[in-house]
Amino acid sequence: MQIGGENTQSIWYDVKSETVKIIDQTLLPHKFEIVQLETLSDVCHAICTMKVRGAPLIGVTAAYGIYLALRENPKCLRQAISELLKTRPTAVNLRWALNRMEKSLREIEEKSLAAKALEHCQLIEKEDIAVCEAIGENGLPIFRELWENRKGSQKSLNILTHCNAGALAAVDWGTALSVVYKAADAGIPLHVWVDETRPRNQGASLTCWELSQRRVPNTLIVDNAGGYLMQIGQVDACIVGSDCTAMNGDVCNKIGTYLKALAAKDNNVPFYAAVPVSTIDLSLEKGIGNIPIEERSSVEVSHFYGVDSSNVLSSVQICEDNTNIKNFAFDVTPAELVTAIITEKGVFEATEASLKNLLD
Amino acid sequence: MQIGGENTQSIWYDVKSETVKIIDQTLLPHKFEIVQLETLSDVCHAICTMKVRGAPLIGVTAAYGIYLALRENPKCLRQAISELLKTRPTAVNLRWALNRMEKSLREIEEKSLAAKALEHCQLIEKEDIAVCEAIGENGLPIFRELWENRKGSQKSLNILTHCNAGALAAVDWGTALSVVYKAADAGIPLHVWVDETRPRNQGASLTCWELSQRRVPNTLIVDNAGGYLMQIGQVDACIVGSDCTAMNGDVCNKIGTYLKALAAKDNNVPFYAAVPVSTIDLSLEKGIGNIPIEERSSVEVSHFYGVDSSNVLSSVQICEDNTNIKNFAFDVTPAELVTAIITEKGVFEATEASLKNLLD
Repeated sequence: MQIGGENTQSIWYDVKSETVKIIDQTLLPHKFEIVQLETLSDVCHAICTMKVRGAPLIGVTAAYGIYLALRENPKCLRQAISELLKTRPTAVNLRWALNRMEKSLREIEEKSLAAKALEHCQLIEKEDIAVCEAIGENGLPIFRELWENRKGSQKSLNILTHCNAGALAAVDWGTALSVVYKAADAGIPLHVWVDETRPRNQGASLTCWELSQRRVPNTLIVDNAGGYLMQIGQVDACIVGSDCTAMNGDVCNKIGTYLKALAAKDNNVPFYAAVPVSTIDLSLEKGIGNIPIEERSSVEVSHFYGVDSSNVLSSVQICEDNTNIKNFAFDVTPAELVTAIITEKGVFEATEASLKNLLD
Repeated sequence: MQIGGENTQSIWYDVKSETVKIIDQTLLPHKFEIVQLETLSDVCHAICTMKVRGAPLIGVTAAYGIYLALRENPKCLRQAISELLKTRPTAVNLRWALNRMEKSLREIEEKSLAAKALEHCQLIEKEDIAVCEAIGENGLPIFRELWENRKGSQKSLNILTHCNAGALAAVDWGTALSVVYKAADAGIPLHVWVDETRPRNQGASLTCWELSQRRVPNTLIVDNAGGYLMQIGQVDACIVGSDCTAMNGDVCNKIGTYLKALAAKDNNVPFYAAVPVSTIDLSLEKGIGNIPIEERSSVEVSHFYGVDSSNVLSSVQICEDNTNIKNFAFDVTPAELVTAIITEKGVFEATEASLKNLLD
C-alpha cells in the first residue's frame, strides 16, 4: 500500500531490530505510528486492543506471535496457540493461521523451531499479499461490467463498503478494497461510500484514510445512511470483507453488514463479499446461530476517540454513567443476500455446491 | 414526563417571565438546563440547532415562535411563517402548526393578535399532550397481546426503538415511547433496545436518559446491532416515530429507520410507527422520492459531542480534516415494511385506503 507516497505493509519482520513491525491502527488517521512487537504478549495485546485488526492481518500477526513465543521458549507452542486463540473468538483466519503454523512445526526439532517458524510466517505473509491481489484481479471484471452497463449520465461507479477490508486489514491490498484498487488502476472512475462503522469507526478512521492515500474519491457516511443512498440510486454495488464464511455461503462480518445486505437486496444492488479462501470454515454448515459472536467492551459504545480542538488524542462519553450497553462485534449475512463471493480462486455463488467446488 | 422525580414538559409558557421555556436537548444527558425563548429568532435558532427536536415538539415550538414574533410586531405574521418554515424542511408538523396558527389568526384585529396567538399556542400544546397520551393508549393493546403471546421463559417484552420519539420529542408522553410508558404503567415488564442514532446520538443522549428517568429498563446499542438482535430473537417489536407520513403509508423518520424495518420484515418482527395524525401529509401520495430529505452539516458526522474525562462538555473529531462527508437526516420506510400506524385516532394499516378512512 501507499502511505504518504511510499510503499509499505501493515506488518513485516524487521531483520535489523529482530522485531515484528506493525502500524498502530488505533491511532489512525490522526497519527501514523509504527510499533514493534517483541513477545507473544505484545502480539496478544496488539490483537485484543485492535492495533491490528481485519481477518487476514489477524492471521498473519498471530503466526508471528508463534514465532516470537518459540524464540523465547521452544517448549511453549501449545500454550502460545491457546493464548492467541483467545484474543478474537470470531476470526476464522486466526485459527487457520495457527493450525498452519502448528502443522508446519510438527516434526521440527527444538533447536530449529524458531527459525522454521519465522520462515513460515514470512511465507504466510507473502501468500497473503498474493491472495489479496488475486481477489482484486478476480473482482475487477465484475466492476468493469457494472461500469460498462452504467446509465449514460453517470460520472463514476459508486461502491459502498462497511468497516475496513482494505490493505490495513491484510498485509497489503486488502480484500474488498483490493477490488476497488484494481478497478481504479484499470481506469474505472470510482467513488466509494464509506460507512463510519460504529462502534469503532474503522470506516471513518481507516477506510477513508487508506482510500485517500491511494487517491480514490470517497465520502464518509453514518451507518444509517446506506439504505437511503440505495433507495435513491446512488449505490451501484456493495462490497465487504468477511471474518468467517460458512459452507452454505452465510457471511459473518462486522456488525451492520447484514442491514446493508438487506437494503441492497431491496433495491436490486449487487452485494459482494471479498474473502480469502482461508476465511471459509469447512466445519460450519451454516452461519446463523453457529458462529460465536464476539462481545466487546461497552466503552467502545459509550466513548468516542478522536482528536480534540487542540489536536490531542482524546475521548468523549456520549451517554450517562451506568448506561446499560451491549456491544456485539459481528453479524451474519444470510447467503440469499450475497450476490457472489469473490476469492483468490475465482468468483463463486454463495451456495454450498459452489463453495464445495471451490474448496475441492 | 418525570425528571428527577418531578413532573415537567419539554416546552411551556412561563407566565411570570413572559417567555417560552424549553429544555436545551443538546446538553442532555450531561446537563439539564432550561432555556428561555423571547423572540422569533430565539425560536428559529432553537429549532435549527436542535435544542428542540422531534416532530410534535417542533410544531408546538414553531407555534410559539409566531406568538413571540407577533408580540414584537403584529404585522410580521407572513415573514415569521416564512422564517420558521426554513428551519427544518422535512418536518410536516412544522407546516401543520404554522397553517393552524395562520388560520386561527386570519380574522383577528391587530391589537388582539398576540393575545390570540398565545391562546392558540397553549391550545396546541394541550392538544399535543392529549394526542400523545391517546397514541400510547391505542398502542397498549398491541404490546399487551405481544406480551400475552410471549414464549414461556421470556422475562420481559423486548422493544427496539430508533432515535427519540419520547416525551422529549413532544410536549409530554411522546409518540413511540408513549406506548412504552402506557405498557409499563399497565404492568407489562418491558425492556427497550435503544439505537444510539448517529449522527446526533439522540438514542444515547435522550432516549436512554428519558427511559431511565421513568425507570424503564433499557440497553444502548449501536445502530448496526438491531439486525443481529432480531436474528437471535431478542426483539419482539420495533416502534418508531415519524416526521412525515405519506398517504400510501410510507413513513419518513430519522435516517436508519428503513434499515431496521427491513430487518424486522426479514425476521418476522412487527414494526410500528406511532404518529400524530398531524404528521400525515394529505398532499403526499407516496413518500419515496417525494419527501424533501434534509441534509445537515458534515460536522455532525465528523465530530462527537459528549463529556471529557473531567466531565466537561467537549467534542472530538473522528476523521481527517477535509474528509468528504454527506449527512442525510431522514429516510423513507416503504409502507410494505410497516405493520401498522398507531395514531391518536386508533391503529391503522399502512395503506391508502386505511389512512383515507382515518382522515375522514
